[in-house]
Amino acid sequence: MTGSLVVVGTGPGKPELMTPATQEALAAATDLVGYGPYLDRVPALRADQCRHASDNRVELDRARHALALAASGRRVAVVSGGDPGVFAMAAAIFEAVESGDPEWHLLDIRVEPGVTAMLAAAAEAGAPLGGDFCALSLSDNLKSWATIERRLKAAAEADFVISLYNPASKARPHQLGEAFTLLRSIKAGETPVLFVRAAGSADSKVVVTTLADADASVADMRTLVIVGSSTTRRVGRWIYTPRGAKP
Amino acid sequence: MTGSLVVVGTGPGKPELMTPATQEALAAATDLVGYGPYLDRVPALRADQCRHASDNRVELDRARHALALAASGRRVAVVSGGDPGVFAMAAAIFEAVESGDPEWHLLDIRVEPGVTAMLAAAAEAGAPLGGDFCALSLSDNLKSWATIERRLKAAAEADFVISLYNPASKARPHQLGEAFTLLRSIKAGETPVLFVRAAGSADSKVVVTTLADADASVADMRTLVIVGSSTTRRVGRWIYTPRGAKP
Repeated sequence: MTGSLVVVGTGPGKPELMTPATQEALAAATDLVGYGPYLDRVPALRADQCRHASDNRVELDRARHALALAASGRRVAVVSGGDPGVFAMAAAIFEAVESGDPEWHLLDIRVEPGVTAMLAAAAEAGAPLGGDFCALSLSDNLKSWATIERRLKAAAEADFVISLYNPASKARPHQLGEAFTLLRSIKAGETPVLFVRAAGSADSKVVVTTLADADASVADMRTLVIVGSSTTRRVGRWIYTPRGAKP
Repeated sequence: MTGSLVVVGTGPGKPELMTPATQEALAAATDLVGYGPYLDRVPALRADQCRHASDNRVELDRARHALALAASGRRVAVVSGGDPGVFAMAAAIFEAVESGDPEWHLLDIRVEPGVTAMLAAAAEAGAPLGGDFCALSLSDNLKSWATIERRLKAAAEADFVISLYNPASKARPHQLGEAFTLLRSIKAGETPVLFVRAAGSADSKVVVTTLADADASVADMRTLVIVGSSTTRRVGRWIYTPRGAKP
């Protein structure tokens, strides 16, 4: 068990948002494992480095492959976008450890934090996460839609700012519209809603609207949606949530 | 209005967790404004750079000072720890813009995202934020304790992983104990609880316990507390939350 595995995140897109610690971890790796588009963000670092690109939605297979490589003595970096601990590969790695070869428990495994999409999206709009907030994935590949609705309802009733990851994909075109319908039954129509596409990358785009007017078809796989709390508001060209809350 | 203002976060502590974009913004600034200990994390970058250190808990005064400097033509960087948009200075800047000199609306103001403490704390323990999660400040300086209790209850009932910022200070020694009491009335006693002190810095320390056994006095101002969901668990020496959820 001389190999090692580090799970890293490239940040939201721009190279300047990847931490130096992650750059160092990538440079030290003999093997990079990840979803193709994330691997493409990593520049060529050394001639002897192998890249193992895989499709999206095969996270557990990818995790097992990475662990097997590490167990064979390789220095493996598993590459996510954003922060690897937020709706990304770190949890999949530990799922694979739990259900896999008992020897994998002995491996040197660590996680490097990164800038997750929600933080980059918020920064582009101002400071919409200035108060208490939650982060929720709308993908029902791994949890039931009833669970998602229950969490949305709780977050809206308790007046959290709500960040929605994975708001839509070709296989799931209806979830975000259903989420907006649910939120409209609890929150004011004038609540600010942000659609931030490709946050923290060179081609990012922010659309600001209200919950009443929010059109779910604006979102795609690369969009992060932020729904404000009751105090989230515009000031000038920015959107922010004050640090306090209504009593 | 030739000045500018950028709000940055140093990351959780280690220089290797400060993004290159933030390093560049700091190097370009003529004036650094922030709480003393955060300014101390910024190396000397240029001989002509002025540092304006202030006490904690004077965020609005600090924000107004920074905006006035920018309005006078300076290139100002406001320095937070972690990510400036999460329980930090970005929201205070926009509060000050809203209530201040109308000319401040014309300023070039932007926010650079960073690695917030919760992400660094999670990475040190494994992947406890692997599912849906929320972030809640326990400070009742700016919101009522009733609001905090309502949000804790909602987050627990909807089975979010819960990150607690500002869990304790000398002026507020009792909040975290009260929060644990409330959470124990809803969540299982064996729920993992993490106390991560100085996450993402050279002297970080992780304590793993359960909700039943959690001792609030372990936490201080530099501690981030993570309370797991119903699926958060140990695997080997790591704590993680699987990507799915109970039905």
